[in-house]
Amino acid sequence: MQILRRIDEPRALARTCKSRGERVALVPTMGYLHEGHLSLVRIARQHADRVVVSLFVNPTQFGPGEDLDRYPRDFERDRALCEEAGVDALFVPEAADMYPQGFSTSVDVHGTLTKGLCGASRPGHFAGVATVVAKLFNLCEPDVAVFGQKDAQQAAVIRRFTEDLNLAVEIVVAPIVREADGLAMSSRNVYLTQDERAQAIVLKKSLGAAVALFDRGERNTAAIINEAEDIVASAPLARISYVEIVDARTLAPVDVIERPALLALAVYFGKTRLIDNTLLPPTGVL
Amino acid sequence: MQILRRIDEPRALARTCKSRGERVALVPTMGYLHEGHLSLVRIARQHADRVVVSLFVNPTQFGPGEDLDRYPRDFERDRALCEEAGVDALFVPEAADMYPQGFSTSVDVHGTLTKGLCGASRPGHFAGVATVVAKLFNLCEPDVAVFGQKDAQQAAVIRRFTEDLNLAVEIVVAPIVREADGLAMSSRNVYLTQDERAQAIVLKKSLGAAVALFDRGERNTAAIINEAEDIVASAPLARISYVEIVDARTLAPVDVIERPALLALAVYFGKTRLIDNTLLPPTGVL
Repeated sequence: MQILRRIDEPRALARTCKSRGERVALVPTMGYLHEGHLSLVRIARQHADRVVVSLFVNPTQFGPGEDLDRYPRDFERDRALCEEAGVDALFVPEAADMYPQGFSTSVDVHGTLTKGLCGASRPGHFAGVATVVAKLFNLCEPDVAVFGQKDAQQAAVIRRFTEDLNLAVEIVVAPIVREADGLAMSSRNVYLTQDERAQAIVLKKSLGAAVALFDRGERNTAAIINEAEDIVASAPLARISYVEIVDARTLAPVDVIERPALLALAVYFGKTRLIDNTLLPPTGVL
Repeated sequence: MQILRRIDEPRALARTCKSRGERVALVPTMGYLHEGHLSLVRIARQHADRVVVSLFVNPTQFGPGEDLDRYPRDFERDRALCEEAGVDALFVPEAADMYPQGFSTSVDVHGTLTKGLCGASRPGHFAGVATVVAKLFNLCEPDVAVFGQKDAQQAAVIRRFTEDLNLAVEIVVAPIVREADGLAMSSRNVYLTQDERAQAIVLKKSLGAAVALFDRGERNTAAIINEAEDIVASAPLARISYVEIVDARTLAPVDVIERPALLALAVYFGKTRLIDNTLLPPTGVL
């Protein structure tokens, strides 16, 4: 497995591969890899001959007071996991190369895709995400890129700007990978105390109850949201940031579910903000 | 010469050319071509084996009340000029294909590059320019793109986002091409009445006087600007939008010229807004 640290290296690699007729996949990550990331690598492999994983804790998608400084990092472990997963190249750029002196550009997705859900409480977050992903796409020139459904709003934003800017990258969104007890895998789960970790299973429980309601025919989003909120609130350490049902494509709020919808939630346990979601119907694809 | 109307055509063409080891140049235009554009085509030819000219009056870079509706268009004339100039392909996309329903993305360059000069009176203009040029770069995948120095701020903005977003496109900025009496060529010159056209030569005269002052050792920008403004104001039909001297790289205002600077001006004749500029020293490269 190659380790690429210079920002001109992944493009050279991609062009060499493509000149041999190989398809190249990119899996952008912020490192501290878990089974969720590794599932993205496996799915990337199904879509391409070569898989590049990028590992970059992108400062511009963290707001003031967020967890940029304490975001967990373990390069040697990430390297070993990627090697084992058969990754062809690990791209590990420096922030000073990604954002050199004078850097002045952002890619901005406007409207409902970025206004609601996490966008409401994390201003600038999705501009940071879209900008760094656009840069990674241009640096790595993948044919396909794989993202996790856990970051559903991020996936929708990336789909949108990729189409809008006519980038020649196919976007694949992969299912959420969960711990045995249902907690969605996240690098941030390591922040949780033992009590918080035990109570965090209410997120998946609330999504399950919402799906059950939906399956019994409930289409009124207020009723489904109430049920989900009640279950989250049963955990004394949980503090709800939002529980919302939105159109799966536009992320605009929905009162009555008539087309595929997304139930998304964000909940604090202490200082740790966890997100999770389900499609309604749950068999849908983001 | 191929005429490409579908937005997936120029990428296919570029990839075919590149697979043969040919370099591809793009000259983005809004059509109604004049000798300035044709000089860009000739310079493009020096940098590449194949030259694509795009012809698209981009609605998103026009503000409310600007001249989008009356912007001059003459496709048959443009086609003949390109054919004669040896252009390999003319890309003529439809606005509905460039900005389909749901389009939500902009490429934004922040700071001094877009705040001053034309950015001050044309809010959103450079976001429109950067977004459409990013799209054209992604659709046409050129190795090199050529822009005119007449739109100096546009060139600086394009250089900036191309570098910031790591687009693999070399940006070439070509010298201003002028009419025999010194007026910079522009598609908008056709708007001028006979009197306005006669008086519009004060723009080049004022730049010449500014260069002469600079060459005699003047480095105080207020003195140079005063001289240039006096000459423009000698034309009774001229109404100054701005006359400014800025750093040639950052476009930040400058009081004393110590590094390469740009003297840029915008002047109304009736409803027609003309721009022109010179580097100080004039031998510089943007």
